[in-house]
Amino acid sequence: MNLDLWTKLPAVAGVFGLLVAMYFYFRVKALPEGNETMRRIAGYIREGSMAFLAREYKVLAVYAAVVFVALAVVISPIAGGWFVAGAFLSLLAGFIGMKAATFANVRTAQAAAGGSKPDALVTALDGGAVMGLCVASLALIGLFLVYFLHVGTPTLGENLHAFAVGASSIALFARIGGGIYTKAADVGADIAGKVIENIPEDDPRNPGVIADNVGDNVGDVAGMGADIYESLVAAVVATMAIGLTASDERIQTLVTGGGDARAIAVALPLILSALGLGVSVVGIFAARAMKNSAPSTVLRAAMVLPPLVMVALTAAILPIFGVTQAVTVALAAGAIGGGAIGLITEYYTGSYAPVKAVAEAAKTGAGTNVIRGMAVGMESVGVCLLLVAGVAYVANAAMGELGLYGIALAAVGMLAGTAIVMTVDAYGPVSDNAGGIAEMAGLPPAVREITDELDAVGNTTAAIGKGFAIGSATLTVVALFSAYSLEVNHARERAGMLPMDLALDNPQILIGLLVGAVLPFVVGASTMLAVGKAAGAIVMEIKRQFDTIPGLREGTAEPQPKAIVDIATTAALTEMILPGLVAVLGPVLVGVTLGPAALAGTLAGALAVGASLSLFMANAGGAWDNAKKYIEKGGIPGHPKRSDTHKAAVVGDTVGDPFKDTSGPGVAILIKVMSVVALLIAPLVATFG
Amino acid sequence: MNLDLWTKLPAVAGVFGLLVAMYFYFRVKALPEGNETMRRIAGYIREGSMAFLAREYKVLAVYAAVVFVALAVVISPIAGGWFVAGAFLSLLAGFIGMKAATFANVRTAQAAAGGSKPDALVTALDGGAVMGLCVASLALIGLFLVYFLHVGTPTLGENLHAFAVGASSIALFARIGGGIYTKAADVGADIAGKVIENIPEDDPRNPGVIADNVGDNVGDVAGMGADIYESLVAAVVATMAIGLTASDERIQTLVTGGGDARAIAVALPLILSALGLGVSVVGIFAARAMKNSAPSTVLRAAMVLPPLVMVALTAAILPIFGVTQAVTVALAAGAIGGGAIGLITEYYTGSYAPVKAVAEAAKTGAGTNVIRGMAVGMESVGVCLLLVAGVAYVANAAMGELGLYGIALAAVGMLAGTAIVMTVDAYGPVSDNAGGIAEMAGLPPAVREITDELDAVGNTTAAIGKGFAIGSATLTVVALFSAYSLEVNHARERAGMLPMDLALDNPQILIGLLVGAVLPFVVGASTMLAVGKAAGAIVMEIKRQFDTIPGLREGTAEPQPKAIVDIATTAALTEMILPGLVAVLGPVLVGVTLGPAALAGTLAGALAVGASLSLFMANAGGAWDNAKKYIEKGGIPGHPKRSDTHKAAVVGDTVGDPFKDTSGPGVAILIKVMSVVALLIAPLVATFG
Repeated sequence: MNLDLWTKLPAVAGVFGLLVAMYFYFRVKALPEGNETMRRIAGYIREGSMAFLAREYKVLAVYAAVVFVALAVVISPIAGGWFVAGAFLSLLAGFIGMKAATFANVRTAQAAAGGSKPDALVTALDGGAVMGLCVASLALIGLFLVYFLHVGTPTLGENLHAFAVGASSIALFARIGGGIYTKAADVGADIAGKVIENIPEDDPRNPGVIADNVGDNVGDVAGMGADIYESLVAAVVATMAIGLTASDERIQTLVTGGGDARAIAVALPLILSALGLGVSVVGIFAARAMKNSAPSTVLRAAMVLPPLVMVALTAAILPIFGVTQAVTVALAAGAIGGGAIGLITEYYTGSYAPVKAVAEAAKTGAGTNVIRGMAVGMESVGVCLLLVAGVAYVANAAMGELGLYGIALAAVGMLAGTAIVMTVDAYGPVSDNAGGIAEMAGLPPAVREITDELDAVGNTTAAIGKGFAIGSATLTVVALFSAYSLEVNHARERAGMLPMDLALDNPQILIGLLVGAVLPFVVGASTMLAVGKAAGAIVMEIKRQFDTIPGLREGTAEPQPKAIVDIATTAALTEMILPGLVAVLGPVLVGVTLGPAALAGTLAGALAVGASLSLFMANAGGAWDNAKKYIEKGGIPGHPKRSDTHKAAVVGDTVGDPFKDTSGPGVAILIKVMSVVALLIAPLVATFG
Repeated sequence: MNLDLWTKLPAVAGVFGLLVAMYFYFRVKALPEGNETMRRIAGYIREGSMAFLAREYKVLAVYAAVVFVALAVVISPIAGGWFVAGAFLSLLAGFIGMKAATFANVRTAQAAAGGSKPDALVTALDGGAVMGLCVASLALIGLFLVYFLHVGTPTLGENLHAFAVGASSIALFARIGGGIYTKAADVGADIAGKVIENIPEDDPRNPGVIADNVGDNVGDVAGMGADIYESLVAAVVATMAIGLTASDERIQTLVTGGGDARAIAVALPLILSALGLGVSVVGIFAARAMKNSAPSTVLRAAMVLPPLVMVALTAAILPIFGVTQAVTVALAAGAIGGGAIGLITEYYTGSYAPVKAVAEAAKTGAGTNVIRGMAVGMESVGVCLLLVAGVAYVANAAMGELGLYGIALAAVGMLAGTAIVMTVDAYGPVSDNAGGIAEMAGLPPAVREITDELDAVGNTTAAIGKGFAIGSATLTVVALFSAYSLEVNHARERAGMLPMDLALDNPQILIGLLVGAVLPFVVGASTMLAVGKAAGAIVMEIKRQFDTIPGLREGTAEPQPKAIVDIATTAALTEMILPGLVAVLGPVLVGVTLGPAALAGTLAGALAVGASLSLFMANAGGAWDNAKKYIEKGGIPGHPKRSDTHKAAVVGDTVGDPFKDTSGPGVAILIKVMSVVALLIAPLVATFG
């Protein structure tokens, strides 16, 4: 076989993916936009979303410039450049994808207005596919370039790490900023609309509704996109990093024949991810072709099947490289585990026993509803993390001496369907927006029925997507962890020092463990507070508008949505800075003051706490959300919408909003950011302490 | 110096402490009990409390018998015997202490009825002191006996560990069982009384009120007592275990001269704890003598000062043994750190900015109140755990090669005031009960005013006590951790095996880390659910009584409190079993199936997650509780009791009840139980994997 030729596959797949994305982009844009009111509302949403991105990018540009200079001085200008590239490609994917999503929302509403559910489904899906394909393609192209330009040189590792830090820190800021925005707007508009003014959700008189819809885009499209882009980058880089640094003896176990094991080990995750992109493209077209089936079947299959197809493909191509089929086992563990976590997440947050119990608990009040939701979230942590541990166990056992490489490959396997998972993920907010536009534009109830069905499926797929995201994050961090310690020890060896004492009974490690446990809680606290503060400011502004704009209450005057959009934007961009800096500077501070062993302990503490806390928050939030919806759909006879039981469930949902869409995802990214930052600075702090 | 003579000090201090406890017991019993109604109500409470203990002891007897047989077969009948002794002494302390507390409650009410706040304060304090002194004295006597009978033999270690497992598992069951009882009764009586029947708290018509008062005793007196007893035992055993197993070379750094370093290292924690008991006794009498000062000043000083006095005493006696003054530094770090954590806890849960912010957040509804309380809890985790990490850092740095011994000593230093901390802790529920009895017996408002003031101080001291408990738990687990790995490697050495690979980049460790992260969430989920279920059953029974007993609503008929007491007792005893078994069997299962390294990872994961989660739950719960009380006291003008704002705050309080008094403390003990169980089974699983 010709490895060199195979290593070009990621570039080919990436360019191909971008071309397909372009096709969808222009297809969606060419669809009819609906009447003037719809166009105006969609225009507000698009404008608000793009304004948020523009302002966010300015903040991030400052951040990127500072880090670039730091990296240029401390490591090398080239590493600084790759950091910028990793960040830039993330922003580019976010920009294109969100533009497409804000075209697709109104066109999905218009398709629904035309009475065709399949057309509406395909429009929303195409809108999501632009984001899905850009995310996977740009990640692959970027990683390919780093690989292609530096392979065989000693700086490949540091440049990969720098690229990953760029991807991760943008993901963190975008996820936290977007999460604060979307939940502040959601909670603010809800409280003001339902409680203060007593008008239904998405009522056009409520000036917060536009911001709520903007929030879906900046949080669930752009934020989620940056998150998934980062997941793929981090999983691939972790695998490559272990391939680069594992001992010769261990690396040799990868191949059964006499191939250049290290070259293969480094290239393999890239090649496999390129395959995954190809499979995803096929999957997207297959899902579109099945547009006449039930949306829930189509989309669930679209998320769970591609990783399995890829496992089969992998088994077929491994012999070409003379690579052990243990790789297939590791990959399969990840692919199957990812799907299983997704389905478990769906069980805990969908219309099953746990959510029904949360809804029932609302009968005795908000307190018992909140308690029950937390218990569900906690229980789900148990099942999900044990499953991740099981995946790691299988991958490790299969790969023997290269166990950690196997664990990293399991993460790659879990993320094999990145493009299609992200497509379906972005489909959700597009449908949600379509429903909002239909409501605000006063389209007939039949239209809203179609968009509601699409939206409901989106909630399920979002749960599955979160399962993939947190599961792969945990595995990736486990893998990054070992890459970190390999890096540190290489650097110490070069400096003529003994390897660091990574043993768990080293007091430095234990002290680090406690410090690491702190960070997820700090990020959790600051993001929860940020949502609360911003939501409060939005409520006040909505109140002000109702109090001062004559005719607004009666529906004869227009609200001023831009004022709300501004408040949410400013709040999100201001409040994302502290948690972002904690994540990026925390590891640096620990490494410099307490040394590399304490930093290892910190990563371990953050991993244990971060993985469990983020799962807890995401799933408790999902359970409350759906418990409320379950009651609204009449799930508890005699306790309809607006009953005391429903009001109690709304309290749980309010608590769950920042849990599931701001703090939970923020904490999950935190641990990845910390790990890649640690990996990047490993050679610098290796000789401390 | 004569070390042998000094090692008798714990026995002397223990017997002396018991004599003082007896003095308080009979002094309290001889005080006047008040009128017939008071006596009847107090009788119900005492009867309910004792009935709970009796039934709990039956369940625990079965558990103890099973474990005794297992230990007798697998380790030795003697170890099995010490396990039983460790458990029995815990139960004995609980029995005597609770009896005294249920004498003291009505006599405190009577003293308040006599119009004397100082007399009421001293009565409540004396009632608490019986528990405080029994806990510390019996722990010391038990530990002394194990030491005295086995010192110099190779089985000292295993017998100490067995004793600690006995103490820990009783603590776990008592804390979880008591916690479920107290919160189920509290939440159930509150919901039924306030929401369904609309009658004030402690109203004699509410049949749940007696159970609520029983709950204070079984949860906050007996449960807390078992917890603190276990803390002291675990900290001392951890220190002794490191003293027993650390390498000769390291142990030698303990002494500056040529003393028998190992003998001193093993005996030192016992001797220091004996000193601590002596200081505590003096402190208790000093506090009683200051009865005319403000109760809050007296009690706060009583908790924070004794550890500091003990540090000074330690500095004075160390030269006698030729021990390095680094021991004083480690001890001081613990003593000062414990006080600081207590004060930080008070800041986050008392009437300061965080609690006021939680109260303010209730203005916009229950959702924002809950969110804000969680943010406060999360933030407090950051500050508290960093402080614990700081204590560990100082203790470790001070003791150099014996750093982990230093960390264990810091825990001993934090617990030096065990007897007085527990006295003040038990004082709280006694005052609370006194208030309840005053209300139920229809005593004049002036009486209730006195008991309310005493009770309010109790809430503050409870917060400080929790700070000591969780802080020392974390340090103890860190210390136990290293004792565990020393044990494992000793056993492997004997079996001719290499030491286990404890490095954090060993996949087994990382997999264990994830498994360990799961356990605190499982215990959290099951205890939250248990409270919810039992509270629901209590609400139903109260409703039934109001619906079926003619005249109850009008106050002309008596309620049937025993029915409620029965429900709470049965629920608590049934529901404590699953989390208890998870804690005890979890480590055994991991050790046997995945081996000792994975078990080490599991302990680390459980430590990181358990320490942070329990702090989060305890402090968020405290903040909600006091935010509600702040509003009730008129803290937010225009938002009085029974306003919407107050109702929103009640939701937070309801969520916080199981958080702070069931799940939070349960999780904190969980990590200690897991660690001592791991330590005990270390030689058995050492050769696995």
